[in-house]
Amino acid sequence: MRYCAEITIQLKQGMLDPEGETIQRALTHLGYAVKSAHAAKRLLIELEADDADDATRMVDEMCRKMLANPVIHNYSIVIR
Amino acid sequence: MRYCAEITIQLKQGMLDPEGETIQRALTHLGYAVKSAHAAKRLLIELEADDADDATRMVDEMCRKMLANPVIHNYSIVIR
Repeated sequence: MRYCAEITIQLKQGMLDPEGETIQRALTHLGYAVKSAHAAKRLLIELEADDADDATRMVDEMCRKMLANPVIHNYSIVIR
Repeated sequence: MRYCAEITIQLKQGMLDPEGETIQRALTHLGYAVKSAHAAKRLLIELEADDADDATRMVDEMCRKMLANPVIHNYSIVIR
């Protein structure tokens, strides 16, 4: 069956986030009262799997093997 | 009041997505039955606003002015 996986990959707490900091600074310069900004990546992947559990297991493996860096990233997976 | 805005910025349908294509190819090489992959950006912004409507209006303005490129991007905003 075909499933759609929505993966969000974000930096772990305490990691430097230069993109987020730049966005916060730029928005503050534009006059917005921005307290913090954090950048993350969102991936939408369509895949073939036997069932939803199988799809979750595969996508988790993809994240560990290639998509995320477990030293600096947290990731969450939603299967539809 | 302080609000948290969750912004998702993705390429419009039909736009070239080299990052998504590279991810799809790499996952296929690793043996996964991936049909498509699309990359998007997710931003979390904490801001001060009078109410939720005001926050939505400000974040929409931020997206149009700086965060997204309306020619190639669609964006969605969730305020919490």
